[in-house]
Amino acid sequence: MFKKETYVNRRKALKEKVGSGLLLFLGNDECGANYEDNTYPYRQDSSFLYYFGLPFAGLNAIIDIDNDREIIFGDELTIDHIVWMGTQPTLHEKAELIGINETLPSRDITAYLDKAVKSGRKIHYLPTYRPEHKLKLWEYLGIKPGTEMPSVDMIRAIVDMRNHKTDEEIVEIERACNVTADMHIEATKVLRPGMKEYEVVAALEAVAAANGCGLSFPTIATVCGQTLHNHYHGHTVKPGDMLLVDAGAETEMGYAGDMSSTICADKKFTTRQKEIYDIQVASHLAAVAALKPGVPFKDVYELSARVICQGLKDLGIMKGDPAEAVAAGAHAMFFPCGLGHMMGLDVHDMENLGEVWVGYDGQPKSTQFGRKSLRLARPLEPGFVLTIEPGVYFIPELIDYWKAEKRFEDFIDYGKLESYRDFTGIRNEEDYLITADGARRLGKKIPLTTDEVEALR
Amino acid sequence: MFKKETYVNRRKALKEKVGSGLLLFLGNDECGANYEDNTYPYRQDSSFLYYFGLPFAGLNAIIDIDNDREIIFGDELTIDHIVWMGTQPTLHEKAELIGINETLPSRDITAYLDKAVKSGRKIHYLPTYRPEHKLKLWEYLGIKPGTEMPSVDMIRAIVDMRNHKTDEEIVEIERACNVTADMHIEATKVLRPGMKEYEVVAALEAVAAANGCGLSFPTIATVCGQTLHNHYHGHTVKPGDMLLVDAGAETEMGYAGDMSSTICADKKFTTRQKEIYDIQVASHLAAVAALKPGVPFKDVYELSARVICQGLKDLGIMKGDPAEAVAAGAHAMFFPCGLGHMMGLDVHDMENLGEVWVGYDGQPKSTQFGRKSLRLARPLEPGFVLTIEPGVYFIPELIDYWKAEKRFEDFIDYGKLESYRDFTGIRNEEDYLITADGARRLGKKIPLTTDEVEALR
Repeated sequence: MFKKETYVNRRKALKEKVGSGLLLFLGNDECGANYEDNTYPYRQDSSFLYYFGLPFAGLNAIIDIDNDREIIFGDELTIDHIVWMGTQPTLHEKAELIGINETLPSRDITAYLDKAVKSGRKIHYLPTYRPEHKLKLWEYLGIKPGTEMPSVDMIRAIVDMRNHKTDEEIVEIERACNVTADMHIEATKVLRPGMKEYEVVAALEAVAAANGCGLSFPTIATVCGQTLHNHYHGHTVKPGDMLLVDAGAETEMGYAGDMSSTICADKKFTTRQKEIYDIQVASHLAAVAALKPGVPFKDVYELSARVICQGLKDLGIMKGDPAEAVAAGAHAMFFPCGLGHMMGLDVHDMENLGEVWVGYDGQPKSTQFGRKSLRLARPLEPGFVLTIEPGVYFIPELIDYWKAEKRFEDFIDYGKLESYRDFTGIRNEEDYLITADGARRLGKKIPLTTDEVEALR
Repeated sequence: MFKKETYVNRRKALKEKVGSGLLLFLGNDECGANYEDNTYPYRQDSSFLYYFGLPFAGLNAIIDIDNDREIIFGDELTIDHIVWMGTQPTLHEKAELIGINETLPSRDITAYLDKAVKSGRKIHYLPTYRPEHKLKLWEYLGIKPGTEMPSVDMIRAIVDMRNHKTDEEIVEIERACNVTADMHIEATKVLRPGMKEYEVVAALEAVAAANGCGLSFPTIATVCGQTLHNHYHGHTVKPGDMLLVDAGAETEMGYAGDMSSTICADKKFTTRQKEIYDIQVASHLAAVAALKPGVPFKDVYELSARVICQGLKDLGIMKGDPAEAVAAGAHAMFFPCGLGHMMGLDVHDMENLGEVWVGYDGQPKSTQFGRKSLRLARPLEPGFVLTIEPGVYFIPELIDYWKAEKRFEDFIDYGKLESYRDFTGIRNEEDYLITADGARRLGKKIPLTTDEVEALR
């Protein structure tokens, strides 16, 4: 937890930004995997963590701007709880750690909100992403699931604050990034042909755990790197394979790291693998070099896509003008995802508040295949933390689908492409902070080029 | 997944047991930790797994007994899903693996149920343990949260089947137990004074992951073993400490192992530690020796508690007659939890269906402190799989609480007890199958005595 003043000041700034009404923060509860008490690792809601810092289940909070009250709603532990879970500070003691003096029993929240509603005051709340949030809104405010009207004022105020990381947040994010880098370095070292993917997962996740960290998202470690979110870990890694690893640590305070690496199963990459790998690296480095305040991230994405198209043209897989190919959307055959995303208390920071606010500042998103997956497009500002993760993928299902439709035949040589349909995919990913005049990589360096990977094998 | 006939036969037996009406099985959905798409490891509902085997989110199922129909409700994948998650069999292909030929889109379930309700048929459903279950019952059947009426007929039929493990289930459970044993052996080997608890957790959880297993419950690994469910892993293990580890593996099919061990931080236990440890072992062995069909598990619990009281009396911590002490409930100062629980697709098997059915066959539970925490009491039957885990704990908060109330002064020497208030706690735990004439330990042996622990240090 940060010092008390951090939370006091954050709430003060939020009150000033929103101006009036009542801000309702629904904390996350425990979630039972297969029965109520067999719970997943507890994760507090990130906006709750940002303004209230308390990583405990069973809490909700209200910032009553009009009456200048800040209240944590929750219940004290009984002797039975203490026997099973040990002594803990009281709720009031916990609240004092974040500068809040008023705590009330959980059941009092309905009456508090009811009174506010009856006096015609605005209740601000955020979008729901867990079914328990829907149940709470229904119980507390009579809002039926599917009829929620989250407060755009509250969303925009929070996004504006959380998008700009402070120095003490950067320290914490960099710690997550250092552990994340160690996870990738460990995976790069331990991989051997004949291993199961899950053995590599075991080794890299143990690095997070041995540093007192959790995972910021479910680990990807796959010989089928062309499948973007592949969580199956049951393949045996064969000679000639590449293992694509996308994994990150989450610190105890909830801050995320997120990196990717693509590792050769053998000591060396093949020539064909190097040729594609070098395209990814060129795209990656071009994107990093372009990072600075004022540059729209959309432009960085377009640049990275053009570099990929140029590289694939040099290999004869694409043809025509790279800039025209990207403008038309032909690059999405090989690069169907975004270039990167904001990162902070969430690995896709504030995804629950809406990408259109976090990454687009309210501007509309493209609906084009590939381009629509870009999570971040807005002009960069100092304090933004984001990932850089271009990729080059050969997705058999997509090749067949587009080829049958004769899509982008001016830009894609489907004959040549056919010889790459079993190539799988390559992605490398690093995390960057936008500074006053450029960008700084967060966390220690992980292998990025084929030479750097091979040096660790 | 088991072979198709297993699921066909299970459903056939269930239909015969319940007799009429419509059985509704709500599958589990993905659960987002901090936003919708950042999901916890997916876990299907265990009764859904037992009858339908499919470990995928977004499914529900109906067994319409009256019309002899079995239907899986779910939606097919789109090309966007395939790009992000890879090719998968169709829902229909998946359903055929478990002997079901009828699949319908998710949205059709409401109309199907509505028609059944309007024709006055009984809709059987199970207790809810995730908020999404409550939302589904509301959406599908108009049942408001808090007004659910789960079907006792359905619960009792399922409990009767799932309580009796088949040979193919035992193979799977024993695999979970073998991996679980390896986790404990690894923890026993790696522990050194100066380590953080979470470093031990990292090492033992990596054993599960490297075997392609998940965790059957959140790992306990604590120098504060007196706290029964202590999930804090931030302490440094000091010389003279004992580390209590309670952890288990879950196989890909969902079957659980669950064992505990108490490990000395040094190469050897102290004499004082050995004296208490030997009491736990004596209680443990007495319980194991008593396991056979027909014996009420409640009697095994009473026996194990008497052995603990006798041992503590020998050390001067308790006094009076052990049998009277146990009858009065005085043992619960040191042994406030149960002796064990059923284990299968859930580590506390079917806890969501109600302990009173699973462990008590509908008979009432004690309300006495300690005794009320006994999850299993019924006469044992061949095929039951259960844990044996007596413990001896010194809980400072409970000592102060009872001492202030002068509770059980005839049985507890509070003066002597005071010198043990910092002792922490000891638990060892193994898993057993009730056989035709006794019981068999499942999985390889883990260290149980102080000699066995010290041999691995």
